[in-house]
Amino acid sequence: MWQLHQFPLCPFSRKVRLLLGEKGVGYDLVRESPWERRDEFLDMNPAGQVPVMIDPARKILLMDSMAICEYLEETVEKSAMINGTAVNRAEIRRLVAWFDTQFFADITAPLLRERMEKRLVTKESPDSKVLREAMKAAVRHLDYTDYLLDHHNWMAGSTMSLADLAAAAQISVTDYLGGIDWKNHEQTARWYRGLKSRPSFRPLLSERMEGITPPKHYDDVDFDL
Amino acid sequence: MWQLHQFPLCPFSRKVRLLLGEKGVGYDLVRESPWERRDEFLDMNPAGQVPVMIDPARKILLMDSMAICEYLEETVEKSAMINGTAVNRAEIRRLVAWFDTQFFADITAPLLRERMEKRLVTKESPDSKVLREAMKAAVRHLDYTDYLLDHHNWMAGSTMSLADLAAAAQISVTDYLGGIDWKNHEQTARWYRGLKSRPSFRPLLSERMEGITPPKHYDDVDFDL
Repeated sequence: MWQLHQFPLCPFSRKVRLLLGEKGVGYDLVRESPWERRDEFLDMNPAGQVPVMIDPARKILLMDSMAICEYLEETVEKSAMINGTAVNRAEIRRLVAWFDTQFFADITAPLLRERMEKRLVTKESPDSKVLREAMKAAVRHLDYTDYLLDHHNWMAGSTMSLADLAAAAQISVTDYLGGIDWKNHEQTARWYRGLKSRPSFRPLLSERMEGITPPKHYDDVDFDL
Repeated sequence: MWQLHQFPLCPFSRKVRLLLGEKGVGYDLVRESPWERRDEFLDMNPAGQVPVMIDPARKILLMDSMAICEYLEETVEKSAMINGTAVNRAEIRRLVAWFDTQFFADITAPLLRERMEKRLVTKESPDSKVLREAMKAAVRHLDYTDYLLDHHNWMAGSTMSLADLAAAAQISVTDYLGGIDWKNHEQTARWYRGLKSRPSFRPLLSERMEGITPPKHYDDVDFDL
C-alpha cells in the first residue's frame, strides 16, 4: 500500500491525491509538516517538500509532485490524465506547470504564508497588503480559467486531464483560505462544482487543517456565486 | 524548422537546447528578453517566460521547458533522455525538478538578478550579501551533485539523462556569472568537463550575453580546479 506524506492544505499533495482517486489507487495518509524540517524527513527528501510517496514493501520512494503524477500515468492505465496527441499532452503539461508555478506563486503561496504559517508557526498577524495583492491576482487568474473554459469544457481541451486536477488542487486550497471571490466567474464556478462532486474530491473537502476554519461555501458542492 | 525564443543566459532554454542538440533536431534561435514584457510575447505566452518553441509551418506552439522536453522525448526517438523503468524515470524527473526549482531559486535566479538584470535593466549595483549567499548555496549544491556522482557516472544513474542536461544548464549559467568555485568539487568538475566536450554543448559555450563577460575558464573544456 502506498503511503502519501502530506499535510491537508498542500496543493501539490492534493493534485496527487486527486489523481490517485481518479485512478482508484489506494493509499494511507502520513502527516508531515515540512516547515518543521525534521531531520528524518530531510534525509528522505533533501528538497524538504511534500508530497512524498512511498511503497515500503516494494522499496519505492517517489518525490516531486509532477514526477509522481507521471509515474502514476505510466504505471496505472485507468483514467489516463495526460492524454491525446503529443501536442495535446504538451498543453496539459504547460497548464499543470502554470497552476503549480504561476497560480501557486501569485495566490496559494502568499495565502498559505499569511493565513496558515503565520497563525500556526510564527504566531504573527497576516499582512493585509499581501492578502489584497493575492486576492487581486486570484481575480486575474480566474479570468484566465474562464477564458480557457469558454473554449472547451475542461482546462486543456474536451476531456478532463491533469490540468484540471492541478487547477482544482490550487483553487481548493485558496478557497479554503478565503482567497476566492466567486462573483463574475460563472465559467470556472460551474467547472469547479463538477469537480467537487466527484468521488476523488470528497475526502479532500471533508478534511480540516487544525486551527483554520474554511468559509461556509468551501465544502458545499452546489455553492452559489 | 523550429524556432526557439530565448536569451543566451536562460537556463531553461539551455536545457531545451542541449536536448535538441543531443537529439540532432535543428532549430533557429529567436532572441527574446522576457523582462521587457513585450505585448506580442505575452499574447503568445501569458507566463511571460522563455523558452517558447514554435513550428510556424505546422502551427505548433510549445511552452514551459519541461513540457517541451517531454514533447521532444515523445516525438523524437533518438537519444532518449527519460529512460529506463518507471522508477528510473521518476528519479530523472525528480532531479530535473530539483535543478529547475531548488538550484535555480538558490543560485541561478539571484545571480541573474544581481549580475545580469541589475547591470542591463535597472542599472543598479549588485547586492554583495545576496551574491555571498548564492555562492554559499552553490557549494552546498555541488556537495550534493558530488554525492550523486559518487554513486553512479551520471546524475540519475548509469546513463546520461535529462537530469544531466538540466544540471548542466543551471551550472553553465551560474559558471558564466562567476558563481561557481570549482575547488573541492572534483566529481562534479569531471562530469562537467565531459558534458562540455559534447557537440550539443559547444554552441552554448561560444555565445555571449551583451555587456557581461564570463570568467576565463568558462568555455575551457579542460578547466582546472
